[in-house]
Amino acid sequence: MQENLMKVQRIEHGTVVDHILPGMAFDVLRVLRMSNDRSMSILINSHSRKGGKKDILKIEDVELSAQEASRVALISPQATINIIVGGKVVRKFNAEAPKVVRGVLTCSNPNCISNQNEPVTTEFRLGPDDGHRYVCSYCERDIVDLAKRIR
Amino acid sequence: MQENLMKVQRIEHGTVVDHILPGMAFDVLRVLRMSNDRSMSILINSHSRKGGKKDILKIEDVELSAQEASRVALISPQATINIIVGGKVVRKFNAEAPKVVRGVLTCSNPNCISNQNEPVTTEFRLGPDDGHRYVCSYCERDIVDLAKRIR
Repeated sequence: MQENLMKVQRIEHGTVVDHILPGMAFDVLRVLRMSNDRSMSILINSHSRKGGKKDILKIEDVELSAQEASRVALISPQATINIIVGGKVVRKFNAEAPKVVRGVLTCSNPNCISNQNEPVTTEFRLGPDDGHRYVCSYCERDIVDLAKRIR
Repeated sequence: MQENLMKVQRIEHGTVVDHILPGMAFDVLRVLRMSNDRSMSILINSHSRKGGKKDILKIEDVELSAQEASRVALISPQATINIIVGGKVVRKFNAEAPKVVRGVLTCSNPNCISNQNEPVTTEFRLGPDDGHRYVCSYCERDIVDLAKRIR
């Protein structure tokens, strides 16, 4: 009986986002603005073959664009995107963290002009170092917890 | 390659919540106040063998109590709970909708005493008919969209 309950249907067409940071799959869904009328499988804190844990997201009948993939990379930079057509992986790529992010994140600085009800679209730049750090273009404040700053 | 990506590990110990109303698994996680450091699999809009769609939730190393199961039934009354120990289903039961719910739901009536910052715990009764309807014990207002009224 358990086998039936557990089986995950083979995906024929869609996207598998693998190597999501453990516990971040819900945030990935949020940045993708994925509606819950899609068929999806979400694995949270799955044991990785290489040891450690990861989340996996499988979305049926959706092929993520490069732009959507970069949104994933925003909060989970090491994620890999697998596009599946006819039951086969036809394209696999690493999500690339966007250099500039407009309108997705909010600044944590209450005095930033982007928080003053002005007609200003938020903008953040990827920092020059390797720390996957985003800096507000208006007030230069770093974002500390990216997932919490998603609009 | 896809097979590796897709495989869902057989659960050795934990709970499978099956037959969740399609699209409601996230709300079930919310009422269970399940933290995202658990290993979980969530299937959204999975095709049911009987036709139609359902959500399935698999939580490792957690055995839901009857009280927790009744919270599931609150928003997804036809869900079934499977407790798994040593890789086998040792107990299977239907979640039973609670007759009285205290402190979980909020009333949609802004004039209800439970919305007046008074030291009052919200309380709802299951209606006598078969409509899975909850009524506020203070102001007698029906809850229209249960999932939205969860605190």
